Amino acid sequence: MQKVIECVPNFSEGKDQKKIKAVADSAREIKGAKVLDVEWDKSHNRSLVTVVGSPDGVLKASFEMIKTATKLIDMNKHKGEHPRIGATDVVPFVPVSGVTLNECVELSNKLAKMVADELNIPVYMYEASAKRDDRINLADIRRGEYEGLKKEIEVNPDRKPDYGSNKMHPTAGAVVIGARKYLVAYNINLDTKDIEIAKKIAKEIREKDGGLPGVKALGFEVDGFAQVSMNLVDFEKTNFDAAFDAVKKLAEEMGIKIKNTEIYGMIPLEALVNAVKTTFRAKEFSSDQVLETRLR
Amino acid sequence: MQKVIECVPNFSEGKDQKKIKAVADSAREIKGAKVLDVEWDKSHNRSLVTVVGSPDGVLKASFEMIKTATKLIDMNKHKGEHPRIGATDVVPFVPVSGVTLNECVELSNKLAKMVADELNIPVYMYEASAKRDDRINLADIRRGEYEGLKKEIEVNPDRKPDYGSNKMHPTAGAVVIGARKYLVAYNINLDTKDIEIAKKIAKEIREKDGGLPGVKALGFEVDGFAQVSMNLVDFEKTNFDAAFDAVKKLAEEMGIKIKNTEIYGMIPLEALVNAVKTTFRAKEFSSDQVLETRLR
Repeated sequence: MQKVIECVPNFSEGKDQKKIKAVADSAREIKGAKVLDVEWDKSHNRSLVTVVGSPDGVLKASFEMIKTATKLIDMNKHKGEHPRIGATDVVPFVPVSGVTLNECVELSNKLAKMVADELNIPVYMYEASAKRDDRINLADIRRGEYEGLKKEIEVNPDRKPDYGSNKMHPTAGAVVIGARKYLVAYNINLDTKDIEIAKKIAKEIREKDGGLPGVKALGFEVDGFAQVSMNLVDFEKTNFDAAFDAVKKLAEEMGIKIKNTEIYGMIPLEALVNAVKTTFRAKEFSSDQVLETRLR
Repeated sequence: MQKVIECVPNFSEGKDQKKIKAVADSAREIKGAKVLDVEWDKSHNRSLVTVVGSPDGVLKASFEMIKTATKLIDMNKHKGEHPRIGATDVVPFVPVSGVTLNECVELSNKLAKMVADELNIPVYMYEASAKRDDRINLADIRRGEYEGLKKEIEVNPDRKPDYGSNKMHPTAGAVVIGARKYLVAYNINLDTKDIEIAKKIAKEIREKDGGLPGVKALGFEVDGFAQVSMNLVDFEKTNFDAAFDAVKKLAEEMGIKIKNTEIYGMIPLEALVNAVKTTFRAKEFSSDQVLETRLR
């Protein structure tokens, strides 16, 4: 199986199309990497580039993007609603196929060293790459944002970066780098207008409240109907088919049917293959049997 | 969506590895085509090459393979258990993604014209490409095999080929070309040793006996357990998830559970996507959302 990693760096520029394009273009030039998507938000003043490719390809592509963002974005002039600490704010590596989370952790450490050594930007490691428990969550690292960290980094030993010196880059600030599992966004629309039912089901199934492992869930109203909106942060533990079954069972206990469901954004082939293996009890089924995989 | 067609030509050589390799190699040289698999059977004295690629790629690859087989295989010396009429016996084009069956029919006609004009081999069109109702089934075209057709082709107007003159190629004989839908092989193992139950279910679900459209099914004994073995010849009409549901329901009515299932060989991504759409009611889901597809 071909090794494929996804990298979705966030940059503190959501208005200037030229700069956003320049950042994405520096990834487009890299062999073994492919830019799948570029998104931006003006009020957040923030953009996001989705790159996939080989471990080496995404490593080079992410480094080149950070380099370009460092040249073009000045944090001293940046304003936006979204919390951030640097020109390149956060860089997650995500295993897609043929790669373990640990390999992504390794890759994130390689990138962090390059960024600290060659670009003089202090780096904080988060999620699976965190070197301290209080740095697993991104929000904890971003406390005080760019302006707050700038004041603290040199004087508060607790905010010493994981790579680089305890000195902000004069214009690019600092960056958070790490590895996390692939996140599948899965929504289930219920055949009821009663949002309380969606909220009740969400509470039952989410990990935080003792539900299914790797499931984050909220109840919403969407187009007048109740929706259970989920983030499956570890589809190898709880895949969309298991989430579907759990929501269906709980809904049926309250006399409610499922209207339809939606997989939002992209999903790794492995998640589809796993669903076939469990739901249709085809335990030997493998992604190698999917014709499109064989074409790569 | 990228256009992908599969072509699985059958050649009347199942013993001489050099010849089998030479035939497959002539496809390997073609840009836009990829040889996925080469199989052979000594007692059938027959080989089978699985090629996938763009319409143009598989057209060129199949032509080059036929050309090589024409040079290397002499039907006057061929003996084997499997029915055949030529050095290249049958060439089916199969839509895999982004391509309709009609496009495959067109492609099969292009190839047929090239084979008749440039290689002087008479061509019969079958399945979806058949120009006469009595040539839809391969067995009808192959009646009498190479030896029988050789005697009849020049004298019986009913056996006039669809392309080329009514004269066998001196060594390569004739060839059958056409287009058909992708065939998914799907087996369901029942938690019973009673084969009669598998046979009963197979009879209920197969199209021939009034069951599900595009389903061929037989009941077998495999490893001491009863198996419903299916060929889904039109997964857009009856996909593996629908077959699973139907077999499960019939088995449960007889108090029998499903042990496990197996998807045999390759399956197009589109079949997995369709199963997600129906079983999990994700009607908007598309293969473009599958990360691996986006990597091509």
